[in-house]
Amino acid sequence: MSAATGGSRPEPFDAVDVIRTKRDRGVLTDAQVDWVVDAYTRGVVAEEQMSALAMAILLNGMERAEVARWTAAMIATGERMDFSGLSRPTADKHSTGGVGDKITLPLAPLVAVFGVAVPQLSGRGLGHTGGTLDKLESIPGWRAALSNDEMMAQLEEVGAVICQAGSGLAPADRKLYALRDVTGTVEAVPLIASSIMSKKIAEGTGSLVLDVKVGSGAFMKDEARARELAEVMVALGTDAGVTTVALLTDMSTPLGLTAGNALEVQESVEVLAGGGPADVVELTVALAREMLAAAGCGDVDPALALADGRAMDVWRAMIRAQGGDPDAPLPTARETETVVAPADGVLARLDALAVGVAAWRLGAGRARKEDAVQAGAGVRWHARPGDVVRAGQPLLTLHTDTPERFARAHEALADAVEVAPPGTDGPLTPLVLDRISA
Amino acid sequence: MSAATGGSRPEPFDAVDVIRTKRDRGVLTDAQVDWVVDAYTRGVVAEEQMSALAMAILLNGMERAEVARWTAAMIATGERMDFSGLSRPTADKHSTGGVGDKITLPLAPLVAVFGVAVPQLSGRGLGHTGGTLDKLESIPGWRAALSNDEMMAQLEEVGAVICQAGSGLAPADRKLYALRDVTGTVEAVPLIASSIMSKKIAEGTGSLVLDVKVGSGAFMKDEARARELAEVMVALGTDAGVTTVALLTDMSTPLGLTAGNALEVQESVEVLAGGGPADVVELTVALAREMLAAAGCGDVDPALALADGRAMDVWRAMIRAQGGDPDAPLPTARETETVVAPADGVLARLDALAVGVAAWRLGAGRARKEDAVQAGAGVRWHARPGDVVRAGQPLLTLHTDTPERFARAHEALADAVEVAPPGTDGPLTPLVLDRISA
Repeated sequence: MSAATGGSRPEPFDAVDVIRTKRDRGVLTDAQVDWVVDAYTRGVVAEEQMSALAMAILLNGMERAEVARWTAAMIATGERMDFSGLSRPTADKHSTGGVGDKITLPLAPLVAVFGVAVPQLSGRGLGHTGGTLDKLESIPGWRAALSNDEMMAQLEEVGAVICQAGSGLAPADRKLYALRDVTGTVEAVPLIASSIMSKKIAEGTGSLVLDVKVGSGAFMKDEARARELAEVMVALGTDAGVTTVALLTDMSTPLGLTAGNALEVQESVEVLAGGGPADVVELTVALAREMLAAAGCGDVDPALALADGRAMDVWRAMIRAQGGDPDAPLPTARETETVVAPADGVLARLDALAVGVAAWRLGAGRARKEDAVQAGAGVRWHARPGDVVRAGQPLLTLHTDTPERFARAHEALADAVEVAPPGTDGPLTPLVLDRISA
Repeated sequence: MSAATGGSRPEPFDAVDVIRTKRDRGVLTDAQVDWVVDAYTRGVVAEEQMSALAMAILLNGMERAEVARWTAAMIATGERMDFSGLSRPTADKHSTGGVGDKITLPLAPLVAVFGVAVPQLSGRGLGHTGGTLDKLESIPGWRAALSNDEMMAQLEEVGAVICQAGSGLAPADRKLYALRDVTGTVEAVPLIASSIMSKKIAEGTGSLVLDVKVGSGAFMKDEARARELAEVMVALGTDAGVTTVALLTDMSTPLGLTAGNALEVQESVEVLAGGGPADVVELTVALAREMLAAAGCGDVDPALALADGRAMDVWRAMIRAQGGDPDAPLPTARETETVVAPADGVLARLDALAVGVAAWRLGAGRARKEDAVQAGAGVRWHARPGDVVRAGQPLLTLHTDTPERFARAHEALADAVEVAPPGTDGPLTPLVLDRISA
């Protein structure tokens, strides 16, 4: 346990002094930050020392300069990528995670239509928000792992790539994230911001659009904290030379009409075909506009490329380039059950967190990193807040291969739905709440 | 790392939920406290989870009822002792630790003179405050480890025993203390209070007097925090049926004229012989009065038993009962150096922390649990605050077997001494600052 004092190699700091500084509301020096991040990655600062420091950071905060240094220190533990050899400008997008958030799937090919390279290094899901790679892996043949050379070639030729982030970017972040996950220290704004931005800056994108979610289905339940996170990330990106913009978007209601893996791919394909749920289209186009503007191609209308099939063409090329068959039928779950409307009226609320947890429990997500996900599992809903519903009408369909999971999914949904008396107005929350730029 | 979720045995709580409750300023339920302390002791709650919880407790605090439950949960992880079979009442004393604090050595035999059994289960030193067992081990032949039967027999026959605490009392505390030591979470009042009181309550003493130190050489640098700690501990003891009183005492100046192992034994013997430094005598007698009153023998004058040799008789019997030779010459260090007064004037300050660190660096204490201590090492000072000094007069003598340690001891003492112009009044801080009872 006393790794910091017991080593034979002399260390310039003692972990306990660094912890005490933050515990007592002090500001860590650049040298302390550089050392503690590096020494933790080397195993010299022990897990229990970093968890105490993470809790002190969560409760006492960090100044902007500290977060910037912490981010730089995380980047320095790994390799950096370089897209400057590409003939196209690069634009990346990151969402802080929500329920039914399949936006990356239509968005990456849509932006690539306009000559921008979109390198989406993505992850798998853990907990109630799904993972982009899990969704795409429901497409027969599609593979998430690409070499750097394969990724570069696909960016040059197709323009869009969605693949697994290599293990070389900010390895400190992977170690720290696993620790935060088991120590109740995930929800620290400085640590969330540095975790996201260290990987995006190390990845080498020229511009970045952040989709910062607010609401029950998001990390950040209240707008003030979401705004703070967005501001910190925009500042970090801007200071590192990445043109960075954030949209604050609503996640009290799940996006679209599906949460799951194959279910969300299917919905994304509908959007790419010029249809799909209005909110998914709206957010896809809004984010595409931001990415195109950030990449210097602001005078185009991305909505046109959904209508005329150009985005679909890039999607098909992107899926094929990674071994997938865009025409293969998607897997479906073996069993379904429905949840019906409890009364006549107007759907006043469909809770994002409850739907996310239900989809997760049905098998769309994983409880532990090593778990497998079911391609067909998830939830499809048949009304959105504001829609008129009638008592007994199916409101949600639950999909799973393992029917013993239905009971706990129904439990998660117990308070998910609220029906207001007929004639009530639906909720008026806009999807895009605000835009934050440097 | 995911010990709490990966086990095959079902656990009633998840460690992350418990951590989050305290992180978000909630109050842990009795069942949560019982579980987290027990599960940590069993290794189901991982070290990094407990360190995050300890930091959250340090920063967000605990209510009195939570501390009481935490203390009870720590006691429940181990065995309890029972002194009720003794023919004498029992009284114990605990000091939160200071520099030159050898009070236990004359105090235990002094109180035993009056028919009270004094079971002093003690520890070894770590850091700048010395350990009682380290001090006594400088007496040739003396042994710290006694069986429970040996301890009981010695309490019945001699009345006083100072020995090593068995490993069976509150094992959760030993594990938690080692963790707090490397994670910057030592200074949490609820954790300090429950650590001390769990062992004292499990030990089964009928009454307890706490010496809570305040000042540079103490854990608690300011009086408000020391008072809070004293109040929490007095409440914990009282609620557990132990008559408990605390004295708040000054530790800005070291006690007596020596800090070290054999050096402090020698000074204790001087006190037992009716002499010794006035402050050591004052505190010994003040604590003896409290212990005697708490044990129901309030109408005696302990000072008399120092003057007439009865306390010395018990001391000699106590040392002999544990294999020690009270007449054997004590070890002395091989080398000495002195620090002289920088100017004519009045000694205005002799800093307890600086003297403690110097003694520790000279070899009287240990940096790591597995280090050995030097019996003869330490510091002797030749003036106390308020004394007139002359430029060039020896103020401190440093003792060590390893002269390469002198340099770092001198460093520690660089700002330890302040000499005020001739004629200045000395500091007027009383030794006993306050008395706290239920």
